[in-house]
Amino acid sequence: MTNIDHTHSLAANTWVPYEGERNDFPIQNLPWGVCEKNGIVVAICDQAVVLRKAIEDGKLQFADDIACALKDDSLNAFMSLGKDTWTHVRHELFSMLSGEPCPEVLCPIASLQLIVPAKIGDYTDFYAARNHATNVGKMFRPDSDPLMPNYLHLPVGYHGRASSIIISGSEVRRPHGQLKPDDSAPIFAPCKLLDYEMEFGAFIGSGNEIGKRISMDDATEHLFGLVILNDWSARDIQKWEYQPLGPFNAKNFASTISPWIVTVDALAPFRQSGPARLEGDPAVLDYLLPVADDVF
Amino acid sequence: MTNIDHTHSLAANTWVPYEGERNDFPIQNLPWGVCEKNGIVVAICDQAVVLRKAIEDGKLQFADDIACALKDDSLNAFMSLGKDTWTHVRHELFSMLSGEPCPEVLCPIASLQLIVPAKIGDYTDFYAARNHATNVGKMFRPDSDPLMPNYLHLPVGYHGRASSIIISGSEVRRPHGQLKPDDSAPIFAPCKLLDYEMEFGAFIGSGNEIGKRISMDDATEHLFGLVILNDWSARDIQKWEYQPLGPFNAKNFASTISPWIVTVDALAPFRQSGPARLEGDPAVLDYLLPVADDVF
Repeated sequence: MTNIDHTHSLAANTWVPYEGERNDFPIQNLPWGVCEKNGIVVAICDQAVVLRKAIEDGKLQFADDIACALKDDSLNAFMSLGKDTWTHVRHELFSMLSGEPCPEVLCPIASLQLIVPAKIGDYTDFYAARNHATNVGKMFRPDSDPLMPNYLHLPVGYHGRASSIIISGSEVRRPHGQLKPDDSAPIFAPCKLLDYEMEFGAFIGSGNEIGKRISMDDATEHLFGLVILNDWSARDIQKWEYQPLGPFNAKNFASTISPWIVTVDALAPFRQSGPARLEGDPAVLDYLLPVADDVF
Repeated sequence: MTNIDHTHSLAANTWVPYEGERNDFPIQNLPWGVCEKNGIVVAICDQAVVLRKAIEDGKLQFADDIACALKDDSLNAFMSLGKDTWTHVRHELFSMLSGEPCPEVLCPIASLQLIVPAKIGDYTDFYAARNHATNVGKMFRPDSDPLMPNYLHLPVGYHGRASSIIISGSEVRRPHGQLKPDDSAPIFAPCKLLDYEMEFGAFIGSGNEIGKRISMDDATEHLFGLVILNDWSARDIQKWEYQPLGPFNAKNFASTISPWIVTVDALAPFRQSGPARLEGDPAVLDYLLPVADDVF
């Protein structure tokens, strides 16, 4: 299940030189990104493998469907090929980067214009952190229980606006919206309570047929990888608009993600079981029972 | 503003024969669809113009960017070209269908496998009908005001799941989900209160740059056209899950749309101003003030 293999060995090394103190992208990591000019890239030290170039030069060899997906301008086609392919390509990249040097397939990361690495069809935001949900509940509903009765029974989530997901570092414009000061009628004004929540974003790489469920046992198999996500929030707009249908304009103006997707494969050594439920919490229904090592 | 022109004349006629009693698709309508085999099509009587064929045969002539968009497998590229192009193409189609007969560019509608006509990037569901919002409010919150305080001040909406929008007539599987019978703990079970709401769906054809607002005056210019939409809803799942973040699994399993998009251009003769606000309703803030003839 945890898929730890030779690519996670701390003894593994690459021929790509690195002089800095802290290397976020050693050969054990190999995160994926997309840049405007060169298409799909994989980071290694302070360089990036340009997949298109490595395949055209014969340094990486794959079946046609994989090669074609890797030469595309987004990760969608590659992600749709599924977990076995992701692992296979990771192994081939590892071989290339730990074998005969071929620096001609690299580009310095600093020279890349990184973009959102996939066309995002849907974006779901889960209210996963209990402390955060409690804090927000106290803010919005000071006179009642901060957690709604459903919170300890099911994953609470909503759809965000997929088209306003942008890359970290992009300028975010302070949104205008409708707010209601406590003592007067609603007004249209710039947001005065701009906030951002630090979250992580998960790229679902391979989907399911409409009408078919995915069980908890199989869920992780569909996950390609993770990014850091900032969920920008206009709290004053949210407070006035969010009932009964949830946050909308308060969250629509921007969500920023880090450009590199760290794969579930790369995170294999860090997987563990989640924390136990608190005493007094209701039992989790069977269909939501966590499996071993499902927390990253 | 209302763009009524010769294509709306009731005297206009086409060479395409029609024997039936009620013609939903006369030459004044010309709705757009996409079929699996032939790509983009426009309905006329019980036939459909295959755009690819009409352009290849020289029966319709356009600049390269328009021709290329019309030969695509979805309407996205064409819709992104904007209102002037949509009107120009409507006029050319009208000329062709009222001019020299060229039945070779037609296919019987009955022979087409129609699909969702565009890649839908985001799907927003507005709670636009006051009576409906009042009824649902009474159902879910029998002991308080059925309309939330914000309802008469702003358009209340939420994002739906774009990837589960399917074509009318597709099979919809009854969803399982978490429900809470009034007198017991939550259970995981098939939905027992399956409902569907009759709505209309609007295709936004041309977008805006992130961070730039569209004024009420300009809003209709971005609308390509309308479809009928059924918003399938699992009311028992919704009742337990919807607070505080809005409907989620209760609406995610399917939303069905009619396959033909009736354009805003075709609806020009039917545009009118909306109903007046009820006595006692609060005033609408300036930025939301409706413009003339903005209701279809």
